[in-house]
Amino acid sequence: VTQPGIDEQLAYLRKGMAEIIREEELRERLAGGRKLRVKAGFDPTAPDLHLGHTVLLRKLKHFQDLGHTVIFLIGDFTALIGDPSGRNVTRPPMTREQIEANAETYKAQVFKILDRERTEVRFNSEWLGKMKFIEDVIPLCSRYTVARLLEREDFAKRFREGQPISVHELLYPLAQAYDSVALQADVEMGGTDQKFNLLVGREIQRDYGQPPQIVATMPLLEGLDGVQKMSKSLGNYIGITEPPEVMYRKVMQISDELMYRYYELLTDLSLAEIAQLKTQMHPMQAKKDLARRIVADFHSPEAAERAAEEFRRVVQEKEVPEGIPAVPLPNGARSAGVVRMDKLLPQIGLADSVSDATRKIKAGAVEVNGVRHRDLGLKLEGTAGQLLIQVGKKWRRVTW
Amino acid sequence: VTQPGIDEQLAYLRKGMAEIIREEELRERLAGGRKLRVKAGFDPTAPDLHLGHTVLLRKLKHFQDLGHTVIFLIGDFTALIGDPSGRNVTRPPMTREQIEANAETYKAQVFKILDRERTEVRFNSEWLGKMKFIEDVIPLCSRYTVARLLEREDFAKRFREGQPISVHELLYPLAQAYDSVALQADVEMGGTDQKFNLLVGREIQRDYGQPPQIVATMPLLEGLDGVQKMSKSLGNYIGITEPPEVMYRKVMQISDELMYRYYELLTDLSLAEIAQLKTQMHPMQAKKDLARRIVADFHSPEAAERAAEEFRRVVQEKEVPEGIPAVPLPNGARSAGVVRMDKLLPQIGLADSVSDATRKIKAGAVEVNGVRHRDLGLKLEGTAGQLLIQVGKKWRRVTW
Repeated sequence: VTQPGIDEQLAYLRKGMAEIIREEELRERLAGGRKLRVKAGFDPTAPDLHLGHTVLLRKLKHFQDLGHTVIFLIGDFTALIGDPSGRNVTRPPMTREQIEANAETYKAQVFKILDRERTEVRFNSEWLGKMKFIEDVIPLCSRYTVARLLEREDFAKRFREGQPISVHELLYPLAQAYDSVALQADVEMGGTDQKFNLLVGREIQRDYGQPPQIVATMPLLEGLDGVQKMSKSLGNYIGITEPPEVMYRKVMQISDELMYRYYELLTDLSLAEIAQLKTQMHPMQAKKDLARRIVADFHSPEAAERAAEEFRRVVQEKEVPEGIPAVPLPNGARSAGVVRMDKLLPQIGLADSVSDATRKIKAGAVEVNGVRHRDLGLKLEGTAGQLLIQVGKKWRRVTW
Repeated sequence: VTQPGIDEQLAYLRKGMAEIIREEELRERLAGGRKLRVKAGFDPTAPDLHLGHTVLLRKLKHFQDLGHTVIFLIGDFTALIGDPSGRNVTRPPMTREQIEANAETYKAQVFKILDRERTEVRFNSEWLGKMKFIEDVIPLCSRYTVARLLEREDFAKRFREGQPISVHELLYPLAQAYDSVALQADVEMGGTDQKFNLLVGREIQRDYGQPPQIVATMPLLEGLDGVQKMSKSLGNYIGITEPPEVMYRKVMQISDELMYRYYELLTDLSLAEIAQLKTQMHPMQAKKDLARRIVADFHSPEAAERAAEEFRRVVQEKEVPEGIPAVPLPNGARSAGVVRMDKLLPQIGLADSVSDATRKIKAGAVEVNGVRHRDLGLKLEGTAGQLLIQVGKKWRRVTW
């Protein structure tokens, strides 16, 4: 296998990244030709990953694609003590067995993306558990000032507002930073919300005589609504253990705009390939392809095929009431192959006004050819001379 | 031996204390009849104690006088690591041997005041050295907030002024507080400058399920100048290993006001006894008695006797020039047995004005009967009908 040039490697890695500190250092290390150690930390709580989590995992995989080693670090350090202040009774300490069991569940999930051969699974209690107050903790804590830790956004806010910050909370970023020392990390990755902690690692490594790690952050993935970040509690997620049909259908519901974002963050396609796809493939088809890719990633290509079939059968070709009024596409509703749905709906009696139509579209109350449609514009390319539009119990067949 | 009543015990302990938190709790524990554990912490650096240090030691002795146990805690915890930030190269870590040697030097000095039988000498590395990051340090640090530690005067000032405070500095008060837990201290004593740290101990003990220690602070002793605190670097000290003659002479140089303060903080006399002495003994005699007591404390009664003898011979009966002009005590210079020295000196040609006389007295340039005199007033009682006054090279013999 011939390695691509440094510029190509960099472009591949940089795709979708929110920030990289510093790119020139990463370039230098890539040029060194050594296998890099790429660290990312994960909670030891029972994992139930959704696509939001896979953004980071996929980027780790990209490092593996280039031959580097990923360190999948399970932060069992804090889990072993629970909430030491005793104030949060809902966070009791976890047992070694629970943590091990969760680690197995993690592996079952993350190795759908990561390469098992190029992954080190580690637990930070391995070294933090050996640290002693006098010999280890005090020297570590002497490397960083209180004021700088209090610059972290959440600390700063709580400090300003007089909300208590316990002293042990200051120790967590330092412990996480020390993980990088123990692991001799070349790169540490995390979400944008982790940037501060990752940067502490950079400085602490320098203090311990190691070259500072490169810090790379990934953006938080928007959920199915395209607005808020994907999360279990908001219900706007696709879980990676959900059945193929459910995953497929959920992907088909997202907006076109979000679809291209998902292409960037949830597939290995390059930016050039995504740009090409934008101009050369109908959004409906692109969305189906994305849904198929995602199902294939977490189940199999066969399962993806079956899910697509099922989608066609149940959703797209669902029972359509008889006697739907057919209306011609009003003059001027189409412009450069795009129909403005917000203007169309009131014209064909499916909304009271443009603003009412806009509201209904945004709320996901409008289906076109069996698929929820959340964009104001709709490309006619690829639609077979008719749009079957449903808003609540009302149907219209628009033809041209 | 019959124990005095609680009120008497309290009065004995309270004498000279700057503050006690809380007196009612101390009263309660004294009433409990149990031997109390009275903790005080000391630096492990080479000790060279002066009278300023003995203020605290003497108060500890008072607890021993009532049957309680004193814990002489040597804080070797920090000494073992030096300055962990590496910024202060003048503070390298100490070896176990150095610390042990210093402890021996300490014992040789402090057992001149403390009762060896009722003293536990401990090192805090004994328990702090066993503390582990996860199991011990994190839980300890979870008990206290950053904001409250930053209320400590020196931290608050540095934080306000943007001076760096390393995270490990926040751990020291918590470690000291944990010492009280490990030792199950009933009382912790220290200088007024230690009040904040002692109070942290109170709260941490409560968190660890122990009754909170009583905190008692002793004032800082003024040095020989009566103004600044006694310190080696200011030169206004009496070291407890200085020769008897030196100690004696230094005591004889202090002002009358300071002498009574020294009686309070450096002897076991009760406030009632000191009040009596003030009214019934000439200050010169009281000062000689004080000097004799102090020398006896740190050397022996015999050494004190010899020092007094030597003082008389060399200082008080020193060669007086012949032909000193004798002048009668001016009319009205005496009032109720007291002579105003600042008014007298210009009248007998030893100063240009009252303010010049005041300045000379304050500066220690005036000797009366062979002893430096720093008060504006001088009691005539006990002086044998004459004052031999020397200012620089000028002498006067004032008679009445």
